Amino acid sequence: MDFDMCGPCRRPDVDAREAARARQLRLTKPPGSLGALEQAAIALAALQGCAQPTLERIWISVFAADHGVAAEGVSAFPQAVTGEMVRNFAHGGAAISVLARRLDATLEVVQLGTVNDPGPLPGVVRVMIAPHTANFCEAPAMDDTQLRQALQAGADSVARATAAGTQAFIGGEMGIGNTTAATALACALLGESPAVLAGAGTGLDAEGVARKQAVVARALDRHADADAPLEVLRRLGGFEIAALTGACISAAQRGMPVIVDGFIATAAALAAVRLNPGVRPWLLFSHCSHERGHRRLLDALDAHPLLDLGLRLGEGSGAAVAVPLLRLACDLHAEMATFEQAGVSTA
Amino acid sequence: MDFDMCGPCRRPDVDAREAARARQLRLTKPPGSLGALEQAAIALAALQGCAQPTLERIWISVFAADHGVAAEGVSAFPQAVTGEMVRNFAHGGAAISVLARRLDATLEVVQLGTVNDPGPLPGVVRVMIAPHTANFCEAPAMDDTQLRQALQAGADSVARATAAGTQAFIGGEMGIGNTTAATALACALLGESPAVLAGAGTGLDAEGVARKQAVVARALDRHADADAPLEVLRRLGGFEIAALTGACISAAQRGMPVIVDGFIATAAALAAVRLNPGVRPWLLFSHCSHERGHRRLLDALDAHPLLDLGLRLGEGSGAAVAVPLLRLACDLHAEMATFEQAGVSTA
Repeated sequence: MDFDMCGPCRRPDVDAREAARARQLRLTKPPGSLGALEQAAIALAALQGCAQPTLERIWISVFAADHGVAAEGVSAFPQAVTGEMVRNFAHGGAAISVLARRLDATLEVVQLGTVNDPGPLPGVVRVMIAPHTANFCEAPAMDDTQLRQALQAGADSVARATAAGTQAFIGGEMGIGNTTAATALACALLGESPAVLAGAGTGLDAEGVARKQAVVARALDRHADADAPLEVLRRLGGFEIAALTGACISAAQRGMPVIVDGFIATAAALAAVRLNPGVRPWLLFSHCSHERGHRRLLDALDAHPLLDLGLRLGEGSGAAVAVPLLRLACDLHAEMATFEQAGVSTA
Repeated sequence: MDFDMCGPCRRPDVDAREAARARQLRLTKPPGSLGALEQAAIALAALQGCAQPTLERIWISVFAADHGVAAEGVSAFPQAVTGEMVRNFAHGGAAISVLARRLDATLEVVQLGTVNDPGPLPGVVRVMIAPHTANFCEAPAMDDTQLRQALQAGADSVARATAAGTQAFIGGEMGIGNTTAATALACALLGESPAVLAGAGTGLDAEGVARKQAVVARALDRHADADAPLEVLRRLGGFEIAALTGACISAAQRGMPVIVDGFIATAAALAAVRLNPGVRPWLLFSHCSHERGHRRLLDALDAHPLLDLGLRLGEGSGAAVAVPLLRLACDLHAEMATFEQAGVSTA
């Protein structure tokens, strides 16, 4: 493994933050009246080390992988969809494909292992760890080697993003059954009950959610002896979840802001923060999704996301939708006149 | 007056709505998983009479006017700011100026009467009704002629927007003291107490809010005999508020979607719906602001805005910030592959 998960993260630039905060107070508006947009500009200033941040170059990596726990009937969709969607990403027909085009963002898909393999495709990086994880009701989802491959895959994406001059990184995911894995991971990390965190995922009915809760409860029981975050991630996570965790840590170490997507990405981000608390300042939270446990996860991270649109798609789509708002926040911060420049009276 | 406020509004296209709804179910995502973005695309389809709506051409009219009630000390800012901000809009330094540039939207300012008059400026339409309204604690804010001039000014803006091929209209406002007028108007229309609806506006402290509540209570008492919406608007509104009301009605009559901004724009929209209920389907609500009474107003209109960013600036800024989300909603709706096209299995 190239990157040291526990290595120090960069620190946000306190001077740039204070300069940005001071500038916001001089702009021709009542102080605070741009709400979360002011806070976003100030946060980006601190992360970019620059009093007037910009956000033109966005990188999106969608990590795709299958899950052994899908055998428990925890998804509304068949497992073949993971590989089918990899092809859809590559052909430009998925939600994240459309969003990446509109945002002029770079989109790469990292295929970490799918039962249904569409074969080599343009824009798809193949890091085929295994066709799927083990069913964590019966065994650890990953062995040590697989976990490290997955973490490294995330770090490698961040390395490519950095080389491309990216200003913010979005990690998305695709994997039938992965809200179940993220729920199990979140329950273990938070000491929370599956009844609180398990939701409908891609569209389970009440009976399906009850089955999913029971599956997660069995898994938690099976792995009750694991408590270190890395071990919890290995036993209950997934290839794409661990890649997202690795990406968060690597991004924070490189000083790259991460725009965090929905429930699964947030569970991965929580694991990253537990593994390396210096990750936290680099995470910008995009939205609170419709998935039941997301708010609880966000609260655990003291996160106040920009959006609450009832999204529950994944793929990094919610994070991508937040990008135009962050860009507007930067534009307002940079281009509004000050009271002095405009000759406007103050309160 | 050219336009008949009570004349029939266009009706949304039910066939286009159903075609859009059906298309959303065929796109490669779990049904409903794009949440409010799906609903926005479906709503725009109905309003544009087109199963695949677009939202490239946006028109923003900012109506500026002063208020007699400012003499009661209800704002954190001096009255001169209204005219100063008209100049700032024209010079491109205000928040809405920055947003309009980034969105490639047309921005016009309609100056309806300001105590401090910066004189003719590029991009500013002068419809100078009076330097300010009357202090509605002592007299009706407007006489009949002034009210009709203001309503007509809003309709005239919509006429210009229509001639320019606009796909959605944003009405913004600027006027020191106008949250007080909007609060009085909202209280009268809703039968609600000033204690429930009066907020901090541009930044009053607790003492200031208490004073504002007392001012609104006096005004409501003074005008308790008025109950027809038009008369309530005349007595308690403002030039810019009536212009926004006229704009909403005219837009609905022309079949132009309106993206409604914050507290003041929503109060004006409520007056429009009370004057002509056919207006309601043409209103897309952009955000819930930080201003105390906004949620109550939105509830009265059964409105579920896209954003909740703690904004409290006005100028149409919150509506402008929602535009990129609406555009992404259109892009996703138009460009995502269907399950059939992509060869992706369904649930």
